[in-house]
Amino acid sequence: MHTVIALDAMGSDKAPRPEIEGALQAARHHGVRVLLVGPEEQLRADLERYPGARRLPVEIVHASEVITMEDKVDAIRGKRDSSIRVGLRLVREGKAAGFVTAGNTGAAMATAKVVLGALPGVDRPALAAAFPTALNTAAILLDVGANVDCNATNLAQFAVMGDIYCRSIFGKKHPRVGLLSIGEEEGKGNDLTREAFPLLKRLPINFVGNVEGRDLYNGDVDVIVADGFVGNVALKTSEGVARLVRAVLKETLKTTITRQVGAYLSRHAFSDFKKRLDHTEYGGAPLLGIKGVCIITHGSSNTNAIKNAVRVAAEFAEGKVNESIERELAGLSVAVTP
Amino acid sequence: MHTVIALDAMGSDKAPRPEIEGALQAARHHGVRVLLVGPEEQLRADLERYPGARRLPVEIVHASEVITMEDKVDAIRGKRDSSIRVGLRLVREGKAAGFVTAGNTGAAMATAKVVLGALPGVDRPALAAAFPTALNTAAILLDVGANVDCNATNLAQFAVMGDIYCRSIFGKKHPRVGLLSIGEEEGKGNDLTREAFPLLKRLPINFVGNVEGRDLYNGDVDVIVADGFVGNVALKTSEGVARLVRAVLKETLKTTITRQVGAYLSRHAFSDFKKRLDHTEYGGAPLLGIKGVCIITHGSSNTNAIKNAVRVAAEFAEGKVNESIERELAGLSVAVTP
Repeated sequence: MHTVIALDAMGSDKAPRPEIEGALQAARHHGVRVLLVGPEEQLRADLERYPGARRLPVEIVHASEVITMEDKVDAIRGKRDSSIRVGLRLVREGKAAGFVTAGNTGAAMATAKVVLGALPGVDRPALAAAFPTALNTAAILLDVGANVDCNATNLAQFAVMGDIYCRSIFGKKHPRVGLLSIGEEEGKGNDLTREAFPLLKRLPINFVGNVEGRDLYNGDVDVIVADGFVGNVALKTSEGVARLVRAVLKETLKTTITRQVGAYLSRHAFSDFKKRLDHTEYGGAPLLGIKGVCIITHGSSNTNAIKNAVRVAAEFAEGKVNESIERELAGLSVAVTP
Repeated sequence: MHTVIALDAMGSDKAPRPEIEGALQAARHHGVRVLLVGPEEQLRADLERYPGARRLPVEIVHASEVITMEDKVDAIRGKRDSSIRVGLRLVREGKAAGFVTAGNTGAAMATAKVVLGALPGVDRPALAAAFPTALNTAAILLDVGANVDCNATNLAQFAVMGDIYCRSIFGKKHPRVGLLSIGEEEGKGNDLTREAFPLLKRLPINFVGNVEGRDLYNGDVDVIVADGFVGNVALKTSEGVARLVRAVLKETLKTTITRQVGAYLSRHAFSDFKKRLDHTEYGGAPLLGIKGVCIITHGSSNTNAIKNAVRVAAEFAEGKVNESIERELAGLSVAVTP
């Protein structure tokens, strides 16, 4: 029995190529049945170019509209037949166990909240991003942008959901959960983190207290909880630093012949390095706390990133992550804001 | 006539050596008169080991106590004769034009606010950090931790102060000032940034709108305004990414002989690279908006970092940055929260 995952064929910057190839690879290597959602004629023609595609469980579901990265809220609402909305409807109707998109993050989150709704016990779904640490493990940061202006109860629910996601998908037995703040002691932080700290302390999780921005990557913590504004700033700042480092290194390695030779000899180290820091291995960011599975990957996603996101969506559904979230939040004092 | 700068001799991780050498270099190369603040006997003995030190305008001012990085608020308040407090008193009494410390940032900010007080028109002083961009220019982020839970008026004042600091110390004619948020359009962000946006738009500065975390390092913006919590998270996250990149690169370059040879040949590129990203060139973070000059540098500061911080403190005083802040804030609608 294959798990069925709906995949937005029109999401990534180079769509639909990474989506088609990612779908074929996920079908071949991970035994997932993929519903490619997008303009049927175009996708059919594209798909036929791949030898062997017919023998793999990849099907097309028609969607006539595409949401672009530039579309504003009104445009997004107006596109009733967008590949994002059609894909999420497949999940609501039980025709797919999950949905994956590399498209407009804001549109995907907003549409998922409307089409699927929140799980019982969840006030606010949260977007969870995974990234590499110095210890070669993955760390998870949430929320990275589904909610700005959170309250302490929201953060406590994020902690529970992040803990379950880390255990289910990354296989950590007792994830260390930290609260992103600006100082390690309990009293340090802003009004929100000071209010959230005692709530997180009372949860049945391995809460390690406040962590700072520099702890995100040192491997000392597995799940980092933040307000969606702060989490988004941290994530995008990290992207900015990584880009700066690459640019400066590239420039300085070009300036003399000796350096060029040196760079040539160590070129495999640089590709290893790139791979170690590569977000495409982590399978995208799930929107935790909705009725269904919705995973959002970077717009620059390549075939490998899409394949991994489809694999993680299937694991998410098979691992019954949502059932765990519902069960563990029920009975907790942080279940729903009074 | 030498500008006089008081320097906390006991602040850095390796104090007092970087402080003594930084003081001597600032005195020799930048014509600054330095008052080294700390335990007199020890400092006198240390200073005498440097040939030629006697001919340079470096003097010792006694302070019997030292604030450590671990000291809590009560301990800090209790140390009435700490090198930080004595140094700041020299500024208040007009015996020094500015104060530099590589010590406990929280202690330095709190003590500066108490000993010196805020400039007329300033609600909240802000700590401003400078860092390198991909275009080899400097960008300034403020506040990086002096205030959590700011209001919109605070952010507008930060914008004015950051603009003046950038013009005075970094020589930019019309600094591009951005508001750190999570989306470029005016409506994007949290309650605070949405309220601050129209205030910043009305200021007589070159306001370029919202910027995202990844814009911090691309050189498109010169001054980035944020709440002290968010700014601190962005700054420390950047440190974390930079550390991760260094660690991973070092590791991958060691794994084979070819790579080791490559790394050897390109070693000067790596030291260039390190220099380009080196925060020690920027002269530390000034606490903007206080009556006097107070510059806080990293605890890991070396001689060069201290020398540059002393130089910048002198330039700050000579450039009459505080007079500009007072003058430009007076008459603006963001002068003081009603």
